[in-house]
Amino acid sequence: MKALQFIDNQLKLSEVSKPVSENEAIIRVTKSGICNTDLEIIRGYAGFSGTIGHEFVGIVEESNDKNWLGKRVVGEINAGCGICELCQSGDSRHCPNRTVLGIHGRDGAHAEFVTLPNVNLLEVPENVTDEQAVFTEPLAAAYGILEQVSVSPETRIAIIGDGKLGILCAQAMALASKNTFLIGKHKDKMSVAEGKGVEGILLEDVPKLNRDFEVVVEASGSESGFATALDLLKPRGKLVLKSTFQGKTNLEMWRVVVDEITIVGSRCGRFAAALELLRDNKVDVESFISEEFSLEKGIEAIEKAQQKGAMKILLKP
Amino acid sequence: MKALQFIDNQLKLSEVSKPVSENEAIIRVTKSGICNTDLEIIRGYAGFSGTIGHEFVGIVEESNDKNWLGKRVVGEINAGCGICELCQSGDSRHCPNRTVLGIHGRDGAHAEFVTLPNVNLLEVPENVTDEQAVFTEPLAAAYGILEQVSVSPETRIAIIGDGKLGILCAQAMALASKNTFLIGKHKDKMSVAEGKGVEGILLEDVPKLNRDFEVVVEASGSESGFATALDLLKPRGKLVLKSTFQGKTNLEMWRVVVDEITIVGSRCGRFAAALELLRDNKVDVESFISEEFSLEKGIEAIEKAQQKGAMKILLKP
Repeated sequence: MKALQFIDNQLKLSEVSKPVSENEAIIRVTKSGICNTDLEIIRGYAGFSGTIGHEFVGIVEESNDKNWLGKRVVGEINAGCGICELCQSGDSRHCPNRTVLGIHGRDGAHAEFVTLPNVNLLEVPENVTDEQAVFTEPLAAAYGILEQVSVSPETRIAIIGDGKLGILCAQAMALASKNTFLIGKHKDKMSVAEGKGVEGILLEDVPKLNRDFEVVVEASGSESGFATALDLLKPRGKLVLKSTFQGKTNLEMWRVVVDEITIVGSRCGRFAAALELLRDNKVDVESFISEEFSLEKGIEAIEKAQQKGAMKILLKP
Repeated sequence: MKALQFIDNQLKLSEVSKPVSENEAIIRVTKSGICNTDLEIIRGYAGFSGTIGHEFVGIVEESNDKNWLGKRVVGEINAGCGICELCQSGDSRHCPNRTVLGIHGRDGAHAEFVTLPNVNLLEVPENVTDEQAVFTEPLAAAYGILEQVSVSPETRIAIIGDGKLGILCAQAMALASKNTFLIGKHKDKMSVAEGKGVEGILLEDVPKLNRDFEVVVEASGSESGFATALDLLKPRGKLVLKSTFQGKTNLEMWRVVVDEITIVGSRCGRFAAALELLRDNKVDVESFISEEFSLEKGIEAIEKAQQKGAMKILLKP
């Protein structure tokens, strides 16, 4: 089968054997999405080697649980060891021995087939299209913020960064608060979130804002985003970090102490909740899609995704 | 009167007028303590100019509320504007227009007299000595952590840094959890906390520890302390920042995102709670005192406090 791989520090479209597994389900991928993490892996982040890709939807072709056969599914990307304290408590997302689809110790989904434990699978509701279902993972990550930070309809929230992650976070937060603002550089990109109750603010207008935000979500991945967040937060406010910054970050941590800011690192969320949002049409994800490529043109697709201003690029095996 | 001042980037013992105030109480200082913040101010931190010092105990000599006259008091160091939302809600510690005793916009306590609003004063319980009362402010700051982070008797807590702040934090945490550990370089310093239920661990033994701490308090003020904290914390653990790092800090923030760590900036606490701890002999502060100087020898006292290994230095006007 074809697989988009990062091996020996090089991106290549490989011809590999179809996976075989007795313990895990084998899923025929119908669509996968290129995430910024894929691009970071290609830059050497995480030292991963193998098939990349972790956002996908597909059909279960093989499973030792016959109930899954033929089902259209998405898959939770963290696969735990199953025996540690965290896995036993039902949360393998932080298992120290976990593998992560296309990110750590496990081949990913930019391929014709992918394997995952049955327990990682979730059936996609009928009215959710493949194009929408591919967004389950990043939407879960965005919506997960609301499990970590308490938000009321009046809470003033700013999201910094109008990339895919920022726009998803803004839409997710707007489901909980009517005072949700997205700060970015691109009016056209912000308009997707504006259709779902978010108010867009251009970065150049930030100096006019007061320090009266209770929650700020940093989704720009830049050090300047962190500084902007501290400029907007009330004392004792909460700064949610969504971006996995590269390397070390140079930050004014003393301001965090003086203003007693709480910083909440936020990576993952629950897939089931995200599928419900898609089913109920609570968020707009399709407006993000820039283009779809066949898996065969995977390298070209990655190059497109690396271009400034690109939004979601899909792959079709 | 005599006052230890930092003016024109120079530390000097000045002869200044006794303060006059219609609105504020005038307190005759009986003892004051030299804090690391005093030393940072002398290095130019915060751009403060005036009389330094914010840890003190004294006797009220003048007040428009006659009930305060002659009382032995300590004083909350933040003086709010009284009219903003925060002040109106009873917490002037984050008032954007606040002055801070000997730190920002208000002459401090290394002097014969100091002024503060009546509302900032707290009477010292009879059985608390002047030497103990001087520790009210830093003890309140240490104990304040328990208002920000939920701790049970089983919670595994590590405090990094065996300076004054670290040892106070360790004692405060040990009041809530029997699994409190203090990580430092000096066995003799750690012994003060060990007498109050804390287990000391030498920094060189940290690599042997597991990543199983639910709460880590960074009180060393060094970047390496931050890294050590991340090495000790469980996923989804809490990192309490007590130190006001100088300038920018170079940190691996991506680890905060991946492990979904919460960082809690923590500066101040409630004086009343700290006075109760002193009254009930729950913490040992007297073992910290290195030496007492007369205010006249203030410059010598500061030099002593700057020496490696110095603990609390007191001044007596």
